[in-house]
Amino acid sequence: MSSDVRYELYYWPSIQGRGEFVRLAFEDAGVPYVDVARLSESEGGGVRTMLRVMKDAAHEPFAPPFLRVGELTIAQTANILAFLGPKLELVPDDEPSRVWANQLQLTIADLAGEAHDTHHPISVGLYYEDQKPEARKRSESFVKERMPKYLKYFERALARGDGEHLVGRQTSYVDLSAFQLLTALGYAFPKAWARLEPELPHLTRLRDRVAQRPRLAAYLGSARRLPFNEDGLFRHYPELDLSD
Amino acid sequence: MSSDVRYELYYWPSIQGRGEFVRLAFEDAGVPYVDVARLSESEGGGVRTMLRVMKDAAHEPFAPPFLRVGELTIAQTANILAFLGPKLELVPDDEPSRVWANQLQLTIADLAGEAHDTHHPISVGLYYEDQKPEARKRSESFVKERMPKYLKYFERALARGDGEHLVGRQTSYVDLSAFQLLTALGYAFPKAWARLEPELPHLTRLRDRVAQRPRLAAYLGSARRLPFNEDGLFRHYPELDLSD
Repeated sequence: MSSDVRYELYYWPSIQGRGEFVRLAFEDAGVPYVDVARLSESEGGGVRTMLRVMKDAAHEPFAPPFLRVGELTIAQTANILAFLGPKLELVPDDEPSRVWANQLQLTIADLAGEAHDTHHPISVGLYYEDQKPEARKRSESFVKERMPKYLKYFERALARGDGEHLVGRQTSYVDLSAFQLLTALGYAFPKAWARLEPELPHLTRLRDRVAQRPRLAAYLGSARRLPFNEDGLFRHYPELDLSD
Repeated sequence: MSSDVRYELYYWPSIQGRGEFVRLAFEDAGVPYVDVARLSESEGGGVRTMLRVMKDAAHEPFAPPFLRVGELTIAQTANILAFLGPKLELVPDDEPSRVWANQLQLTIADLAGEAHDTHHPISVGLYYEDQKPEARKRSESFVKERMPKYLKYFERALARGDGEHLVGRQTSYVDLSAFQLLTALGYAFPKAWARLEPELPHLTRLRDRVAQRPRLAAYLGSARRLPFNEDGLFRHYPELDLSD
């Protein structure tokens, strides 16, 4: 882990969103990174800078988040984490572990995508307010079927391993991402989460354990950790949660 | 590339779907694989076998497709291809190329997921017939905004490279997947595709070039290539296509 590498993360500056999975890896590893779009324009930051860098990259990202390190521009959250994992010592060395980590991370991304589509089932080009009836229908299937199916899957994956880590016997970027996913789902769908939590003892312990890791706890208590809000990937709209 | 490795692909036996991206890699490489669920139960195949293998795996897949090779079970299409790419000589050796290949493959997967959601915008647990009004709304935004945005992105990616290959200067699994994506979109949304095609000269040439690769052409003309149909990921429902 050389500290002379400059890591630049580019993501929307006002939401946790998909960028948060990457932020958590840097924060837990204690490796400095520049969260470029959160700097002011006079500091070389801002959204316009991000979009310009994105369009000009030889390997253009389709969307944020993306990472710049040396000559490389790397997009797609799971891809960024597969690249960073070894460098941040957040994944075991062997190929089977890395393949398994990437498999789980992509499944986390799928669940996050489905959570997003509960508030945007018709179009990302429309406001939530313009697709509310469809959002209620989609979220009903999400909280009753999809979210339980995914979370029970991760619970089994954890129970079949050492019970504490999703990959191998050490904390990996996948554990950090699982912490983020569970915290976010608890924020967005508190009733659905409360109903499921008793069936997810390993996952709940993992979430609590990760939150107490010293560098991560410091980050979560800092101003660098953006609050959840209703502009992001995981939004709390009570009408989309499980009904009583 | 050792021919003594036994590759077992597990995927739904009656559709191209996400499994087809993996099939194309094996077929183009000329590397034998067993398409397990397409064998009869008496041959050790079938869907029930697939689901049992899935549930029993130490590293359980969330869903097909998945690959078994030796002791490993590997799921998530892009993850399978990132694993197979080097072994099938379908990706360059250097890390930047592999990261870029994975980034593009994940973006192909995102577009495929959005194409799927045009016919299932509310729930995968419901039939298309039960979500037709919402499907028409979602597909309108897909054919007018999302599909053009993604395809123009891939066109730029190709034009910024050598103009013929998405990754480096040799055919990679990403080119094969792009062929599949373009062919499938042309099947599902022929009017939207016809409108866009003049703006996608590099992509169109890539699709046609890949289709003529000898092993792939042989595969596409064989009974192993399943036809597109309305049970799969890419479905032709004229009412979801661009209107005149």
